[in-house]
Amino acid sequence: MNKNKINYLKNNLPFFKDLSSEELNNLILISYLKKYSKGELIHSKNSNCTGVILVINGQLRSFLDSSSGKEITMFRLIDRDICLLSASCVFKNLTYDISLEAEKDSLVLIIEGAYLKKLSESNSHVQKFLFDLTQDKLSEVMWIIEQIVFLNFDRRLANFLLNQSYLENSTTLKITHDAIANHLGSAREVVSRMLKRFENEGLIKMSRGTIEIINLEKLK
Amino acid sequence: MNKNKINYLKNNLPFFKDLSSEELNNLILISYLKKYSKGELIHSKNSNCTGVILVINGQLRSFLDSSSGKEITMFRLIDRDICLLSASCVFKNLTYDISLEAEKDSLVLIIEGAYLKKLSESNSHVQKFLFDLTQDKLSEVMWIIEQIVFLNFDRRLANFLLNQSYLENSTTLKITHDAIANHLGSAREVVSRMLKRFENEGLIKMSRGTIEIINLEKLK
Repeated sequence: MNKNKINYLKNNLPFFKDLSSEELNNLILISYLKKYSKGELIHSKNSNCTGVILVINGQLRSFLDSSSGKEITMFRLIDRDICLLSASCVFKNLTYDISLEAEKDSLVLIIEGAYLKKLSESNSHVQKFLFDLTQDKLSEVMWIIEQIVFLNFDRRLANFLLNQSYLENSTTLKITHDAIANHLGSAREVVSRMLKRFENEGLIKMSRGTIEIINLEKLK
Repeated sequence: MNKNKINYLKNNLPFFKDLSSEELNNLILISYLKKYSKGELIHSKNSNCTGVILVINGQLRSFLDSSSGKEITMFRLIDRDICLLSASCVFKNLTYDISLEAEKDSLVLIIEGAYLKKLSESNSHVQKFLFDLTQDKLSEVMWIIEQIVFLNFDRRLANFLLNQSYLENSTTLKITHDAIANHLGSAREVVSRMLKRFENEGLIKMSRGTIEIINLEKLK
């Protein structure tokens, strides 16, 4: 298990080679592998600083949720993706609350946020790593805003179905209208209405709990 | 002018004291003061890397715009605020295009992005400064997404009017419905309809080109 952990750290952390042996030992001590079952919550508003999460295998979803129960998916994370937003204590000013759940059975490596923050203060390679991750996230989040504001809802829904098909490696998607609404920060009725339109246009075919993509090219 | 410039840099850049005399000289050389008139474009999609912009006085607006002409305001910047997103070359992965315009006559100090990036690679204090700025922006952008997705449009419009009143230091706002729509990433018709509702509820009073806030408390 420990050997696995060291390998995952070595293969995924660019600063691994720039650590002193003491730093390395501490990093190994404070990071841990954890399995999550499909549907399990990994990080929520209430769990302040879970840490930086490295996906070994599986699929995670990070999302924002409002007090009224509305949700919107921010990122889907697959193998080798790193979630920074679950390490809130790494941040100077935290003004948002992200949640993270396993969409499939997943194995993740968690690196304690407080230690990483401390490490970044003394090791500029670690700081660079966190800086790069933050820049990536900022770019992605700006992109998400562009999608939300500038794309019509039919385009966003079509993109979601295409991405889902890519993640599932299938054109038959087992997903409810309610779940799609939560991904897109929309209402179930709006999703159902638009899916109906897609069906009428021959893009998809709906049955109980399943959406089948009929015309992938036209959906693009 | 040069003395002013040095003072602005000294008072606003936390890494100022951590520069070598050579670094400091270069920083002074490559940064410059510039005046913009109300309405002038400071940075656009096409101007790749204007640099990090420090507002000395005035008011700037950063916004995203789509190919179809739709806009949404990201941040308003006032005295001592720093705009990082106009220094795209500082970033590793750029997947967005921000524009920046002067909302009032403004004096700004521009620090060339390419130099700052180079400096951040050799000086960890500069890297820390850019890291902190990026973290702040990420937090703000996450907050903006929450506003867009979870707040009803009436609440977003009310918040905009309150913020505008704060920036103008007046309850009489000289602004068109079209301009408000561009701030909020919405359509003029939607804005006009909601303002009409606010007027019917006794919150505001409209006349040609002007919106007067009648009941500030109830608008909050």
